Amino acid sequence: MAINWESKYCERANGIYGSMTRQLMHLIANPEVISFGGGLPASELFPVDQVKAITHDVLDQKGMAVLQYGTSEGYEPLRQAVVERYTQRGFDIGLENVLITSGAQQGIDLVSKLFVGKGDLIVVGDPTFLTALQTFNLFQADYLTVPVDAEGMQVERLPGILEARNVKFIYIMPNFQNPSGATLSLERRRQMMEIVRHYQVPVVEDDAYGELRYDGAHLPALKSMDPDGQVIYLGSFSKVLSPGIRVSALIAEKNLMEKLVFAKQAADLHTDNLAQHIIYEFMRRDLLDRHIARLIDFYRKRRDAMIQAMTTYLPVQVTWTTPQGGLFLWPTLPSGIDSGVLFEKAVEAKVAYVPGACYHAKGGGERSLRLNFTACSEAVIEEGIQRLATVINANQTS
Amino acid sequence: MAINWESKYCERANGIYGSMTRQLMHLIANPEVISFGGGLPASELFPVDQVKAITHDVLDQKGMAVLQYGTSEGYEPLRQAVVERYTQRGFDIGLENVLITSGAQQGIDLVSKLFVGKGDLIVVGDPTFLTALQTFNLFQADYLTVPVDAEGMQVERLPGILEARNVKFIYIMPNFQNPSGATLSLERRRQMMEIVRHYQVPVVEDDAYGELRYDGAHLPALKSMDPDGQVIYLGSFSKVLSPGIRVSALIAEKNLMEKLVFAKQAADLHTDNLAQHIIYEFMRRDLLDRHIARLIDFYRKRRDAMIQAMTTYLPVQVTWTTPQGGLFLWPTLPSGIDSGVLFEKAVEAKVAYVPGACYHAKGGGERSLRLNFTACSEAVIEEGIQRLATVINANQTS
Repeated sequence: MAINWESKYCERANGIYGSMTRQLMHLIANPEVISFGGGLPASELFPVDQVKAITHDVLDQKGMAVLQYGTSEGYEPLRQAVVERYTQRGFDIGLENVLITSGAQQGIDLVSKLFVGKGDLIVVGDPTFLTALQTFNLFQADYLTVPVDAEGMQVERLPGILEARNVKFIYIMPNFQNPSGATLSLERRRQMMEIVRHYQVPVVEDDAYGELRYDGAHLPALKSMDPDGQVIYLGSFSKVLSPGIRVSALIAEKNLMEKLVFAKQAADLHTDNLAQHIIYEFMRRDLLDRHIARLIDFYRKRRDAMIQAMTTYLPVQVTWTTPQGGLFLWPTLPSGIDSGVLFEKAVEAKVAYVPGACYHAKGGGERSLRLNFTACSEAVIEEGIQRLATVINANQTS
Repeated sequence: MAINWESKYCERANGIYGSMTRQLMHLIANPEVISFGGGLPASELFPVDQVKAITHDVLDQKGMAVLQYGTSEGYEPLRQAVVERYTQRGFDIGLENVLITSGAQQGIDLVSKLFVGKGDLIVVGDPTFLTALQTFNLFQADYLTVPVDAEGMQVERLPGILEARNVKFIYIMPNFQNPSGATLSLERRRQMMEIVRHYQVPVVEDDAYGELRYDGAHLPALKSMDPDGQVIYLGSFSKVLSPGIRVSALIAEKNLMEKLVFAKQAADLHTDNLAQHIIYEFMRRDLLDRHIARLIDFYRKRRDAMIQAMTTYLPVQVTWTTPQGGLFLWPTLPSGIDSGVLFEKAVEAKVAYVPGACYHAKGGGERSLRLNFTACSEAVIEEGIQRLATVINANQTS
């Protein structure tokens, strides 16, 4: 007799369901489909030869240490390199503020473990990053949403939301947000830090894409405007080096670290050592910034190619804001077209995206869609947008 | 003004406190201390050259795929290799039963996420694996304990414990248990599976050490005696290959997989790709079993050297059972000596172990201590046991 697992699950497990994007991705396994659906960096730009040389040297010189257990905090020279990198950006931090995680996603998991119980309130943008919502859902969070416009989260709405509620934290991706591509303006950054200081609310700043800026000057991270240490910053090497190598840095106030390190140990003991050494050597050999400069050149062209194709082929009723960096465009369809309903027809026409509704914690987004512009060549981008235009035109009601 | 984090933590975070072993490990950072405290494999036996050759080939042939995102389930050829390896041991499984995790510790985290809410009951051995307890504590578990003797968990006590209670699962390490070294006898394995079938209780079988058997024949895994799929099996490559490469396999009934894969995605998206490829190639090239045979030769000698030294130097009132495999010896001190109290004196005498109390969910174990015999050479083992003998002799009350 098979066991009745339902009688064994805890309440938390009821918040687990098949991810919509995972199901979508199965639909588009057909290689003939041009997929703008993933959040993938361009494979052909990965610095394979450099990784090869580094792994050779690392194993040659420190093989025994690399293959042995490491510390839960992370490889100390890597943590030190993170301190130096972010000190240059105005972070007031030391070694005691850095925890190496197995990707930024694990940072979201660890923070949730510390702060999120059933029904606890998190403030998120509307839209917001889907996989963060999945982790928060697992810990049974409830949400307060703040609209995101072309200048990012409308932070002027925060006082009304934070007043008289115990919000556990505000989750925000200030640079080239996934999915909307919006960047929080400098004025809003200042305003936000004033508000969260007044209301004593922690901020989880997810900066997965910040280094991939194609136009304009970098804006200061919220963490660099945070003298009281209330921002937990999630850096990532996934988009600027390799997402297959699972290494990120969580930067937080020292007081939080004992619990975070305990949670990290309980989660997976420590992050893969060889992966940590590879990332460290990339920084030590001064290869990382050069690689990022190369990515920016390529990705800017791809973004521009997608915008050019959208301008050329999509009906004029489709609108968008040009993102200054990151991986995504976030167009809005004409009224009367639901991007979720359109999805199956798009896949039939051999082009895929992620429907906007996936990114809304409390509903909405039916006219939006997320398009990735980094994973495909310019020619493929043009072909894919042409296919999308055909599908949209065929489904225009007017 | 610094933020009041206490007002933001959820109840779960109160179960997080500095791990006793982590604090102990800081005490013994002094390189003059001979440490039997860690659970470390022998660094000098790591197959560094083979890992070097494999990483070179893998990056040469599949570099772009290795550096790109992978699937949450894990690298499919590795999952297939796991299926083949365990099918040979009588597991009735296919690809749909295998999830690759970032170490077996992550398997414990994912299982906890599905099953363990506040106050939920888990049956554990007394003693049991410390880091599993830390993860269960984080999810606010409560415990029912079953004594462990030389033949492992006293499973005949299970009916009295399982009757009329909703136990979420039994957590057990049947082979060379950490910390006691005890192995569940064949008779008890059969008896246990009958009992858990009758009571319809899931089992989490942690088999971190099973392949490291120095005497006698391998006993069947509980998972191979599990036609109804109620055993969740945690395999590991940490002890047989490298713990710095964080890769393990979780094997479970298909019905559980959708939720487990969701939890895996929410935890860290997927396990490091290069790590997965290294483990896969070790199996594909038929290097793993040869390496294990080499480890067994070395570790058997080290176990025997520690037992020889204990027999020679320790007072006769110290007793132990010889483990047939694994990494640990678990002696009992004469009455009147508390291994926790003795610890600081031992460190002064430049030898370290882990006090037995760390491994008990509900108290006890004050006369036990865990000694690792795999990480030190035979000469160092003898010196360390001599130092330990001096400390014990100086603290004998009679």
